[in-house]
Amino acid sequence: MHRKLRMGMVGGGLDAFIGAVHRRAAVFDHEIELVCGSFSASPEKSKRTGQSLYLPDDRIYDSFEEMIQREKELPEGERMDFISIVTPNHLHFPPAKLALENGFHVICDKPMTLNLQEAKELAQIVEKSGLVFALTHNYTGYPMVKEAREIVRSGKLGQIRKVVVEYPQGWLSKYEEGNDYKQAIWRTDPARSGAAGCMGDIGTHAENLAEYITGLKITELCADLTTFVPGRLLDDDGNVLLRFDNGAKGVLHASQISNGEENALKIFVYGELGGLEWHQMEPNTLHYKSQEGHRLIRPNVGEMSPAAKAHIRLPSGHPEGFFEAFANIYRDFAYAVKAHMNGEQLDPVYDFPSVYDGVRGLAFIETVIASNQSTEKWTKFVQ
Amino acid sequence: MHRKLRMGMVGGGLDAFIGAVHRRAAVFDHEIELVCGSFSASPEKSKRTGQSLYLPDDRIYDSFEEMIQREKELPEGERMDFISIVTPNHLHFPPAKLALENGFHVICDKPMTLNLQEAKELAQIVEKSGLVFALTHNYTGYPMVKEAREIVRSGKLGQIRKVVVEYPQGWLSKYEEGNDYKQAIWRTDPARSGAAGCMGDIGTHAENLAEYITGLKITELCADLTTFVPGRLLDDDGNVLLRFDNGAKGVLHASQISNGEENALKIFVYGELGGLEWHQMEPNTLHYKSQEGHRLIRPNVGEMSPAAKAHIRLPSGHPEGFFEAFANIYRDFAYAVKAHMNGEQLDPVYDFPSVYDGVRGLAFIETVIASNQSTEKWTKFVQ
Amino acid sequence: MHRKLRMGMVGGGLDAFIGAVHRRAAVFDHEIELVCGSFSASPEKSKRTGQSLYLPDDRIYDSFEEMIQREKELPEGERMDFISIVTPNHLHFPPAKLALENGFHVICDKPMTLNLQEAKELAQIVEKSGLVFALTHNYTGYPMVKEAREIVRSGKLGQIRKVVVEYPQGWLSKYEEGNDYKQAIWRTDPARSGAAGCMGDIGTHAENLAEYITGLKITELCADLTTFVPGRLLDDDGNVLLRFDNGAKGVLHASQISNGEENALKIFVYGELGGLEWHQMEPNTLHYKSQEGHRLIRPNVGEMSPAAKAHIRLPSGHPEGFFEAFANIYRDFAYAVKAHMNGEQLDPVYDFPSVYDGVRGLAFIETVIASNQSTEKWTKFVQ
Amino acid sequence: MHRKLRMGMVGGGLDAFIGAVHRRAAVFDHEIELVCGSFSASPEKSKRTGQSLYLPDDRIYDSFEEMIQREKELPEGERMDFISIVTPNHLHFPPAKLALENGFHVICDKPMTLNLQEAKELAQIVEKSGLVFALTHNYTGYPMVKEAREIVRSGKLGQIRKVVVEYPQGWLSKYEEGNDYKQAIWRTDPARSGAAGCMGDIGTHAENLAEYITGLKITELCADLTTFVPGRLLDDDGNVLLRFDNGAKGVLHASQISNGEENALKIFVYGELGGLEWHQMEPNTLHYKSQEGHRLIRPNVGEMSPAAKAHIRLPSGHPEGFFEAFANIYRDFAYAVKAHMNGEQLDPVYDFPSVYDGVRGLAFIETVIASNQSTEKWTKFVQ
Repeated sequence: MHRKLRMGMVGGGLDAFIGAVHRRAAVFDHEIELVCGSFSASPEKSKRTGQSLYLPDDRIYDSFEEMIQREKELPEGERMDFISIVTPNHLHFPPAKLALENGFHVICDKPMTLNLQEAKELAQIVEKSGLVFALTHNYTGYPMVKEAREIVRSGKLGQIRKVVVEYPQGWLSKYEEGNDYKQAIWRTDPARSGAAGCMGDIGTHAENLAEYITGLKITELCADLTTFVPGRLLDDDGNVLLRFDNGAKGVLHASQISNGEENALKIFVYGELGGLEWHQMEPNTLHYKSQEGHRLIRPNVGEMSPAAKAHIRLPSGHPEGFFEAFANIYRDFAYAVKAHMNGEQLDPVYDFPSVYDGVRGLAFIETVIASNQSTEKWTKFVQ
Repeated sequence: MHRKLRMGMVGGGLDAFIGAVHRRAAVFDHEIELVCGSFSASPEKSKRTGQSLYLPDDRIYDSFEEMIQREKELPEGERMDFISIVTPNHLHFPPAKLALENGFHVICDKPMTLNLQEAKELAQIVEKSGLVFALTHNYTGYPMVKEAREIVRSGKLGQIRKVVVEYPQGWLSKYEEGNDYKQAIWRTDPARSGAAGCMGDIGTHAENLAEYITGLKITELCADLTTFVPGRLLDDDGNVLLRFDNGAKGVLHASQISNGEENALKIFVYGELGGLEWHQMEPNTLHYKSQEGHRLIRPNVGEMSPAAKAHIRLPSGHPEGFFEAFANIYRDFAYAVKAHMNGEQLDPVYDFPSVYDGVRGLAFIETVIASNQSTEKWTKFVQ
Repeated sequence: MHRKLRMGMVGGGLDAFIGAVHRRAAVFDHEIELVCGSFSASPEKSKRTGQSLYLPDDRIYDSFEEMIQREKELPEGERMDFISIVTPNHLHFPPAKLALENGFHVICDKPMTLNLQEAKELAQIVEKSGLVFALTHNYTGYPMVKEAREIVRSGKLGQIRKVVVEYPQGWLSKYEEGNDYKQAIWRTDPARSGAAGCMGDIGTHAENLAEYITGLKITELCADLTTFVPGRLLDDDGNVLLRFDNGAKGVLHASQISNGEENALKIFVYGELGGLEWHQMEPNTLHYKSQEGHRLIRPNVGEMSPAAKAHIRLPSGHPEGFFEAFANIYRDFAYAVKAHMNGEQLDPVYDFPSVYDGVRGLAFIETVIASNQSTEKWTKFVQ
Repeated sequence: MHRKLRMGMVGGGLDAFIGAVHRRAAVFDHEIELVCGSFSASPEKSKRTGQSLYLPDDRIYDSFEEMIQREKELPEGERMDFISIVTPNHLHFPPAKLALENGFHVICDKPMTLNLQEAKELAQIVEKSGLVFALTHNYTGYPMVKEAREIVRSGKLGQIRKVVVEYPQGWLSKYEEGNDYKQAIWRTDPARSGAAGCMGDIGTHAENLAEYITGLKITELCADLTTFVPGRLLDDDGNVLLRFDNGAKGVLHASQISNGEENALKIFVYGELGGLEWHQMEPNTLHYKSQEGHRLIRPNVGEMSPAAKAHIRLPSGHPEGFFEAFANIYRDFAYAVKAHMNGEQLDPVYDFPSVYDGVRGLAFIETVIASNQSTEKWTKFVQ
């Protein structure tokens, strides 16, 4: 097969932040083209969105159900190959399920579903379908995050002892959901966001990043969630103690009321022999420290793992950012879809979060909610 | 007209760094699609490149002359609307001229031409054609660079007194042109690069950035160029004193033998009332300092000029980088082409470097070369 | 009284790190001179230390008891005015008590005593004596820490919601106490260090800093302490969830096995209206952030509180560090002793940690130890 | 001889910035005590200053002449051992000469004298006296500056090719000398400051630092000096191209009108094999970069030269700053004076700027003044 993959989008109307990110990420490496979409619950808005993207009118749909059915009727090579789901959380599961059951691969925003039960069911559907499913925990797409994972894997840090992952934001310091602020409204609405607010929206990114880099699993945790802004329906801040399956300890905190913080995801990993530090807002520097010295690892400077190298597009000193990390997820997903079509194995330097990462994310949410309500110190990670 | 613009590319074979940047930048905002190309002097390599980009074989050409002629024969809306020139410097002028003379808009890499004479001739051709011409001095596409320019324009700094612009790189610290290293080979070859090496390749970026942000013009300068690496044919380092048309003084230095530096373009602008500082390698922070305080200006944090805002795509804390700045040039160029097609004026929040910036770049090169050879302290900026 | 204050030192033998810091801090502002000392449990080492400091032999004592008795017999103005206690923790209380009971003021290293009972007893002794007592929680001596406290006090941040204080070090990543490494040996010995290792040595600094800047009190906490290094007798890492008396939440973690970290105390304070960030390793920058912008507050740049200004000695851009912050504690203590001698009130721009801060430090240690052993999530702060 | 050295101070009245720095630096390591002074041209102010420092009245003098004469009459061991000169530049030479001719060692602020002629004469006086003379180019006292010098000496960078040294300040952006601002008034007065303003006050620090770290000598230069602030009598900004004796090239610029800059001395040194970068405002980090990687060298982290180690007083992560670097000059000077007294050689890990560094500083000033007035590009460094 020698052609671009064809993408249909679910969600991502004109004023959506993350939909536009997905669209740019998808086309970035010339492997994918957007061919159709159901961009909004409002057919009129879906139409306007599709037209602004220069789609033909007959490929702009009123609903994902219509899209999946109609596209399926088109000949292979013309019809979409996969769908990208960028709706609020409660609308992830239905289109994912329908697409998979109709033979379309799926790439989906996070958290994967509205609750853990849906997540587990989705995992079964994916398994049964044999199709490719990717979850856009986009921060794992950064080359320096991959380099961090490779350093841990190499054993250079020795046994991991401590992990600190922090995700402060400040944008919900006020009651923004009262301001016709679409991003705020659905994220603070339990019906659309799920059982957790901040911990679902960004806490799951932190959890995923910690497990991705260290290769460890959280086994139990102790959470203290708070809703600081009066009138808000979900947590806007959470502090969590972590214990990992190898005996490592950790701290995870996430917040959307850390006033003045932008999107300050950062992680610190300490092993017997050295430590790593990475900040999402300066993503092209990985700090590698030990009692012998402090090294800044930078894309395409000196030795670097094949996995990191495979996700860098520019010479050193030419900063790549959020879009490029996101595009790495899409490109690797595209490679996986092509490998699937061609009956080949994906080269392991390419990787992306799977449906099982999605299950862990929802389990994390349910565990922190349970722990928050408990007077016991430790709550086992929900299976 | 409601469709994407159609781009034909000149240069940008598979192993070219900058061609791939242009292609990603072009499609990033869904306003442009690549429809054809003449990607290499080698027809075979051009073919392989076009195929890897999923172009149909009949839109992959053996030469830019063939491309321009054949595309012109296609119906409007199918044929390309503009060409993107990403060849080495000596091959900028011929395709630009031919394209303009055949009614195609042009976007071209920098420095604009091989020498000042070509640059002036090209300016005349552009004027005569009435078409849109953009030069990819991409660093002016960064939002924080635009914010810096707007702060200067606002008068908040008062009269500008001093400008320091520095562009150290280290990648040519050894005789890389002997290593079959394509990027090094043509940049150090006078026949393909022009009269200057480092000063042409990156010194012109520094000159352009200084004039862009300050709105000032260099009137005279004093240059000391050096070729440090034995066997190299062009300068790999240059230090320049500057004088500007308002009486401001400055320093510009650029280097490709500053060992260990990546792509460390940085600029400092000082006025009567305050100063600015910007580093390309951390492009999302603009330092605004005065004796009253030090402020970090960041995309989408607090008040910001419309010009800066119009070039930001993400919420605060989601880093945009080199590709996005480059894409800003392409998108603004696309808007200009559309405005041209529709007989409209381009909204002034959008801007991109023009053919006159290109002329100044070549004049800068010729002036530093002349100054370097002179025993006089000051050499007037060549007109 | 117009003369320097006279200091006698307890502890601080030749190879002690903190004793040398105290001595330099004491003399830094020309308000104090070292006149005598009992520098070691070994009379011979005490002698060598005193001689290296050019003390006369008859003012170098074999024990603190001897020093206090003999100095008391000297005439006022010749005898020491106060003692500085820089011994391991188990030897803080005895000399402090004896000195106060004999009319000498006291400045003492932290944690204040070996346990909470001693701490409370010492508070009573201080009260009864009417003398001046200072505790060298030296990090509160940094001007930017004082500025942070003043910003919180001013109400500019609104109600404080979240506090994150982190104190990672890596120097005990291995079993250093087996290496004849004096600093490691006593700090990991319960008989000399107290019930906690890392949490006593540096966790108390973190606790003190958080309460100092915010003016809040921790009311309950949830701690998870670990001893990672085999053979070690005390905790070398601890993670703690915090709740404050105004409803604010927080995280405190401290570690001496965070491999590669130097002395990376840092604090983040978020209120309804803005946030602050300070790093001990770059102590001259205080970050003041809100959704409106990000400002770097620097010594003697722009407006600054009188309290901060009173603790800066240099023009902007001339970095002051650890010694100067320490010296601020000593100088303010000296001012307090002089004010006491002269029957005056200390100007409130000067301040230093008190015996009550010391009591809270020990209460913190006992609370985290209790919490660590509990299966309950929350443990009330010990009174 | 087992006692502290005794210092007499010339200049440093109560409101002087640098005098107070010298006094703290002198006593910092317990090797020096202040025993007398002539602190001001005003006897009354000298008296007040001495008293504030708790000096006895009979050791507070009305003039340096009186001090030198009267001290000489005191017995050895009671009289001062050396003088510290901290007056404005025009008052460096007279007390230095008189002290040396009367057998007192001298430590003196920079620039060493009012002009080159005085500097050369002073060098002869020092030679003839056989006494110890130190010049407080204090930035060479930073441990990481010494480490930089050692790295260059080790040959790890290969041949040095390029040096960029920058010293922007902003504090004279306005006509401060009209504001009864003592620091500004004398520095902008040719009779007290010498032929250069900014270039004398801080340009000489930059020149000294570049030559200290690289071990190279400037052989010719091209200078462009400016007085931006109306009414000012001396340069407040200067940009200089440099050529060194090994063929290296460089840029030096210094400014006191770089609005918003504090005291931002920084240096970049590039060799065939790697580069170094150091910023005075973050003095505890030395960047060591090459195409293989970027390392942060920090005090007491990993391997370090004996010369650097000998100038660090604290464990890693405990920031030392401006005072400590200054104190390193004083301590090493004290060691030299003691070695002189004891007829011993100074251990070469200790070093401080000499009278010959002072001569080069004045030669630098005269060369940049001459170059500034010349229409020739290059001016040979004055001998």
